[in-house]
Amino acid sequence: MPEDSRKRASRRLKIARGHLDAIVRMLDDPDAYCVDVLRQIKAVQGALSGAGEVVLRGHLEAHVATSHQRGDSIEIVEELMEALKYT
Amino acid sequence: MPEDSRKRASRRLKIARGHLDAIVRMLDDPDAYCVDVLRQIKAVQGALSGAGEVVLRGHLEAHVATSHQRGDSIEIVEELMEALKYT
Amino acid sequence: MPEDSRKRASRRLKIARGHLDAIVRMLDDPDAYCVDVLRQIKAVQGALSGAGEVVLRGHLEAHVATSHQRGDSIEIVEELMEALKYT
Amino acid sequence: MPEDSRKRASRRLKIARGHLDAIVRMLDDPDAYCVDVLRQIKAVQGALSGAGEVVLRGHLEAHVATSHQRGDSIEIVEELMEALKYT
Repeated sequence: MPEDSRKRASRRLKIARGHLDAIVRMLDDPDAYCVDVLRQIKAVQGALSGAGEVVLRGHLEAHVATSHQRGDSIEIVEELMEALKYT
Repeated sequence: MPEDSRKRASRRLKIARGHLDAIVRMLDDPDAYCVDVLRQIKAVQGALSGAGEVVLRGHLEAHVATSHQRGDSIEIVEELMEALKYT
Repeated sequence: MPEDSRKRASRRLKIARGHLDAIVRMLDDPDAYCVDVLRQIKAVQGALSGAGEVVLRGHLEAHVATSHQRGDSIEIVEELMEALKYT
Repeated sequence: MPEDSRKRASRRLKIARGHLDAIVRMLDDPDAYCVDVLRQIKAVQGALSGAGEVVLRGHLEAHVATSHQRGDSIEIVEELMEALKYT
């Protein structure tokens, strides 16, 4: 993975992790309100999407864009399509 | 939030956090491969969706289903629609 | 389905259908560019989400909010959770 | 767009269009049930996702994989990331 993508994705995931910690603490409170928790979970999912986009962009530039020259574009594209299926 | 939903959601989120820890460690390795990281991020998003569904179900049963009797169904539905917009 | 939701959802779906027609015509052109088509498909998905939100809101207000009084909230919530799983 | 992707995507979109017609007719019936309509809308969104995947795969193979050789990989990747943002 390109160095820059790796560092930027790591930073974003650490922030998301801190956010997730906060939700777990939120749920320790018997008076936690469902919709507040729902919003926070969705916000962490959004942060993870942001990290995923950093990784995807780095992969497209470093590995997919050069695959025709290497001769492995079919495998690289198949692999990526399968990974994107998780959306 | 219903006690049962709160506990089940908390358990799921703690598992997701552990998974997120693992991805952050994965990114410490300069040889981390983009598509592996992408898959793991998507898996954590899936786990968060699962926790969100637990919270949503509890909310529908405890708060939305009883809202007409309380007389606040318009506000309760508006609030939920706004929260779901994060999907 | 509440009359108002039905009409508003129908209007939105007819617009989405017209948009889908335009994409099918776009694909008749051998020079159609992939990313343009991707954007248009995503826009129609967005329009369908909008129609889905109209239907969901109507359902929450008309059927879910009154379910505790009717005594069928467990079935109504189960049914809705299953339908939302398609997201 | 690669010929094969164009034809396969077109076929899928025509099927989705027929399905959308059926939902519009469904909504002509005052007794249409919200959750049935919600399910059908989600099914059409799924069909559109399938068509989008055909287009995306064709684009990755035909245009992204060859972009480094052409020297325009930054623009091609930027364009694709923007289009994927609609997800």
